[in-house]
Amino acid sequence: MDCNLEQFASDNNSGICPEALEYMIKANLGSAPAYGNDEWTLLATDYFRDLFEIDCEVFFVFNGTAANSLSLAALCQSYHSVICHENAHIETDECGAPEFASNGSKLLLAKGENGKLTPEAIEAIVNKRADIHYPKPKVISLTQATELGTLYSIDELVAIKSVAQKYNLKIHMDGARFANAVVAMNKSPAEISWKCGIDVLCFCGTKNGMALGEAIIFFNKATSEDFAYRCKQAGQLASKMRFISAPWLGLLETGAWFKNARHANQCAEYLENQLLKIEGVEMMFKREANGVFVKLPEQVITTLREKNWQFYTFIGVGGVRFMCSWSTTQARIDELVDDIKEAKA
Amino acid sequence: MDCNLEQFASDNNSGICPEALEYMIKANLGSAPAYGNDEWTLLATDYFRDLFEIDCEVFFVFNGTAANSLSLAALCQSYHSVICHENAHIETDECGAPEFASNGSKLLLAKGENGKLTPEAIEAIVNKRADIHYPKPKVISLTQATELGTLYSIDELVAIKSVAQKYNLKIHMDGARFANAVVAMNKSPAEISWKCGIDVLCFCGTKNGMALGEAIIFFNKATSEDFAYRCKQAGQLASKMRFISAPWLGLLETGAWFKNARHANQCAEYLENQLLKIEGVEMMFKREANGVFVKLPEQVITTLREKNWQFYTFIGVGGVRFMCSWSTTQARIDELVDDIKEAKA
Amino acid sequence: MDCNLEQFASDNNSGICPEALEYMIKANLGSAPAYGNDEWTLLATDYFRDLFEIDCEVFFVFNGTAANSLSLAALCQSYHSVICHENAHIETDECGAPEFASNGSKLLLAKGENGKLTPEAIEAIVNKRADIHYPKPKVISLTQATELGTLYSIDELVAIKSVAQKYNLKIHMDGARFANAVVAMNKSPAEISWKCGIDVLCFCGTKNGMALGEAIIFFNKATSEDFAYRCKQAGQLASKMRFISAPWLGLLETGAWFKNARHANQCAEYLENQLLKIEGVEMMFKREANGVFVKLPEQVITTLREKNWQFYTFIGVGGVRFMCSWSTTQARIDELVDDIKEAKA
Amino acid sequence: MDCNLEQFASDNNSGICPEALEYMIKANLGSAPAYGNDEWTLLATDYFRDLFEIDCEVFFVFNGTAANSLSLAALCQSYHSVICHENAHIETDECGAPEFASNGSKLLLAKGENGKLTPEAIEAIVNKRADIHYPKPKVISLTQATELGTLYSIDELVAIKSVAQKYNLKIHMDGARFANAVVAMNKSPAEISWKCGIDVLCFCGTKNGMALGEAIIFFNKATSEDFAYRCKQAGQLASKMRFISAPWLGLLETGAWFKNARHANQCAEYLENQLLKIEGVEMMFKREANGVFVKLPEQVITTLREKNWQFYTFIGVGGVRFMCSWSTTQARIDELVDDIKEAKA
Repeated sequence: MDCNLEQFASDNNSGICPEALEYMIKANLGSAPAYGNDEWTLLATDYFRDLFEIDCEVFFVFNGTAANSLSLAALCQSYHSVICHENAHIETDECGAPEFASNGSKLLLAKGENGKLTPEAIEAIVNKRADIHYPKPKVISLTQATELGTLYSIDELVAIKSVAQKYNLKIHMDGARFANAVVAMNKSPAEISWKCGIDVLCFCGTKNGMALGEAIIFFNKATSEDFAYRCKQAGQLASKMRFISAPWLGLLETGAWFKNARHANQCAEYLENQLLKIEGVEMMFKREANGVFVKLPEQVITTLREKNWQFYTFIGVGGVRFMCSWSTTQARIDELVDDIKEAKA
Repeated sequence: MDCNLEQFASDNNSGICPEALEYMIKANLGSAPAYGNDEWTLLATDYFRDLFEIDCEVFFVFNGTAANSLSLAALCQSYHSVICHENAHIETDECGAPEFASNGSKLLLAKGENGKLTPEAIEAIVNKRADIHYPKPKVISLTQATELGTLYSIDELVAIKSVAQKYNLKIHMDGARFANAVVAMNKSPAEISWKCGIDVLCFCGTKNGMALGEAIIFFNKATSEDFAYRCKQAGQLASKMRFISAPWLGLLETGAWFKNARHANQCAEYLENQLLKIEGVEMMFKREANGVFVKLPEQVITTLREKNWQFYTFIGVGGVRFMCSWSTTQARIDELVDDIKEAKA
Repeated sequence: MDCNLEQFASDNNSGICPEALEYMIKANLGSAPAYGNDEWTLLATDYFRDLFEIDCEVFFVFNGTAANSLSLAALCQSYHSVICHENAHIETDECGAPEFASNGSKLLLAKGENGKLTPEAIEAIVNKRADIHYPKPKVISLTQATELGTLYSIDELVAIKSVAQKYNLKIHMDGARFANAVVAMNKSPAEISWKCGIDVLCFCGTKNGMALGEAIIFFNKATSEDFAYRCKQAGQLASKMRFISAPWLGLLETGAWFKNARHANQCAEYLENQLLKIEGVEMMFKREANGVFVKLPEQVITTLREKNWQFYTFIGVGGVRFMCSWSTTQARIDELVDDIKEAKA
Repeated sequence: MDCNLEQFASDNNSGICPEALEYMIKANLGSAPAYGNDEWTLLATDYFRDLFEIDCEVFFVFNGTAANSLSLAALCQSYHSVICHENAHIETDECGAPEFASNGSKLLLAKGENGKLTPEAIEAIVNKRADIHYPKPKVISLTQATELGTLYSIDELVAIKSVAQKYNLKIHMDGARFANAVVAMNKSPAEISWKCGIDVLCFCGTKNGMALGEAIIFFNKATSEDFAYRCKQAGQLASKMRFISAPWLGLLETGAWFKNARHANQCAEYLENQLLKIEGVEMMFKREANGVFVKLPEQVITTLREKNWQFYTFIGVGGVRFMCSWSTTQARIDELVDDIKEAKA
């Protein structure tokens, strides 16, 4: 299998990073209690509390769709609604998972530049209706870094927190690329999460270098009541939990979570710089984390496809997403850039 | 961590077997398409078709609760019901997962010796009600091997198939220990599944030696329509699918699935034999697969607990379950038996 | 249509009582705001607060299944469970409605003489399991009068309240025949509801003489948060609400709710007395409200069926339920008794 | 209570029409079997089959939200989606009922002039995505007459039918004002429903002159399998069904359903004509059924509100909806028009 062909489609095309694998293998010695009653899980959840400098509740689930939809369901009832950006992953790529997990909560979509919600857009949605014929907004969902590779600044997060408080809304953060945001913003995990009013964060391990596994972190502990039951009922409680928690511990203890994200961001920065050197090439959105969104002529896109490059396109826009991960290499970036140059010529 | 202490509580306390781990590591080379569009997944699903000698549909999900509840939901609507044994895992240990996944299907509980449904019990439930105030039975759910370590014989399965056909019911098989059943019965996978009328089988990889991962196998392909969407919506579609499918391929290609099950069964047989040599020791149920259910005096149970042996008890019955897995050793069994003898003396 | 033939099957075979009809017709003058923003609804809900001597929240829904399932859903999440008697209507006759409305809450069934839960049975269920693999009990559901025509005494209710407090359980009362209980017990509505710790009561109007319509009364107001949205989402918000609330006001203001129930109870008492005069006739359960449960020989049951009498039977038991309503007449009771005597002879 | 003040807000502010009331009272004689096993229900459902000239399946539920959401749920699974206009009642005014009843089906919103879906818009949505990360479209939902008072012509319906067939989509019709459409189009019920490919129609009785009650009519009988169970489970099975079915029979047998709709349409036409005589007054949308959508200066709207006129407004647009019903009178229309004239002056 020629594994190199797939790069740049998504950071979840990457494999397991060495540190995660090492801890998984370490955890494989002998038997261990099931369902999270093992020591690896204890250590990993404690590590999260240290990392976030707060006594939070931590749960592991299998993937990001589950993390998002179950944590949203914990914040609202079926007749409530969730305010999110129209490009939010929970809206565009989870096949109705939030609606399913919550048994019917609607997502109320806001527009906003660079894939970001604004306080004004949130407020407009909250105030649009106040009758019982429309589901009552209860949650704001933010993605950090966003689906368009951009970042909410601390100021932007604080402004959203104010709106949330004004209207008694909870804040959910889809942290599919939370590590990349931490690195890019040069802030601590605490500074860009609960200190900005985030109630619950879905911290993605898979894209960061694990085989699978996400941590749901409730800073607002009251909202996590009986959440373990919810995970169990939804088919999200791993029996051999250690094979999720040990790799997480590996990422955390060794600092690989940060290193992997930094590497991915740097790759994206390098790719961006190389692309901008090509005449006429323009970014779709400002590159801030590990994704590069660039406008390319149709014939370039076609040529790249023919050469088996994998990436997402934005139909009709002439836009392309190149995603970098912990395993991206400069050599592959150079090959890609060369192919783009050649196709353009 | 003293990992040896935990053995005999459950086969999901065991780790990853060498073959599964080897394939997981092999699959970790380079990038791969996400969401099951990789070659490992293609190979593994094809292998299942070969193994079962039929053109079936195969889906991978994360755990057994998900496998059972999503496949049951595919067989019935919310206002239908599922007939199962009162000891069925879907009833006693999935925290309402089938009801959640199906949005309300009731489980109708039948009694039956040795943890097994009988045609008579099924028929009695079907005929108990015929009005719209009670959910219409649509599915029979069998566990093979059962939760009490027993087996449905081919004859018993065929008799249940007849009832199913008579009343137009689908048959779901919870195969948490399907491999152990195959070994114990000395039949082919096909002979004890679709050839006996099973519509869908949840074939457990976790207990058989994987880190996690179950295969849902639809022999009745019509019932699997759009099932991939169902998995996605329920948070059961792995992005890095290869880390579930490759270990499965490892189990299948190397024959480890069979070897592991045979080893577990043999351990259980050995344990049973050793126990029966102790005067006054009696089995709760006939040992047929990898679980040993034995009656022990309360003081023996207490002593074993004090010595940190892990196992399940049946409250008030003086019964104990010892579960063997691919990683159980004769040495540990001997230690356990010695401790029981000593406690009895 | 020979309408007389149907009596004794159920109190919901009866029609609309004069008072309910009169108010419905009164409410039909001109236009009125929709969705409960009309004066009839205001008056009726206020009347309930007076009747129950407490500042409670009142919602109207269309039928008893909706009242029970939505109010239960308000008291628990999908991964919680509801403790009820094995004969409870929510278990036996609502086609999985509670599971549907709650998206999966399980009903945990208790046995108990005369259709009644006992503190011991409740406690046994609560203490049976304490792990996340089984849904956590959150609610006790009582039916008053019970499905077997019996009554929970004040003492019994108080004892259940103690268990509820001990284990932090809410209490739901299915009041399909609450009015009959009030009459039979010679207590005020408050005395047998919130004063005994009931959090929410489903007060049935349909069986009491309305065309349809139930009042859900939250004594524990905290549990009714956003309940109007829940009703709307579940298709239980009447646009022309006045046609439910006005007849309710009719029942309440005129005292018909009490009079109707008293009449039904008296009819049942009369029927019971007549039956007991027949040699060899025995009651199945003590008659306490408006239902008479009596053992009859199979040939008598067959003869009654042939004469077109409508009633429910208990299969294999030789038991029969005769239900009296606001419209039952002594003449019809006499005819029934005569036919039974004749058939016996 | 000054009932006249409320007119023009909605046709569900009207009361019960004489024919419906008469039949309700007729049906109140004596007892009747519950749950739809009575003769009125038999007669009414047969009458629908005659009216629609086809052997269809007919179910009665309590309100329009229930009718729409349950029938949609019958046409798709939770991971499917429903294509509708962005102004569709199911999207804007049912508080997430379709998502709740279906356990998560998404509504995919299309724009379209005059509140109408177009084949192009439907096709664009169908073709937008073809991956399992987005719910698969299965149903088109049309409202006839639309929420903006307009009508789909036969040609438009036929064109949509073609798209539906091309992509294997079912068609649901929200017939909140179906009777008004029949009258306005001068076509038979069959011609504008199943002959145009409609699979299921929700025929509204409430707005047409009943106290409550909607008929769900499955022309595509295969899609109605076990639908009675669905109604029961969702709390939509009336025990005293005759009080829904008899008034329906009243509307149908006497022709009141048609007369009421014709009256409402004529009132709207008269109102429109009177308004157009006022200088500078302009319609928002073409008036085709019983709703008049008109642009009015803010100060006129304010004045009307002060005079206690009830109507809906379109925020920021200076638009107003006046809805006529079976009970609207020319005198009230004249008063309204006079007040508008006066306010404008």
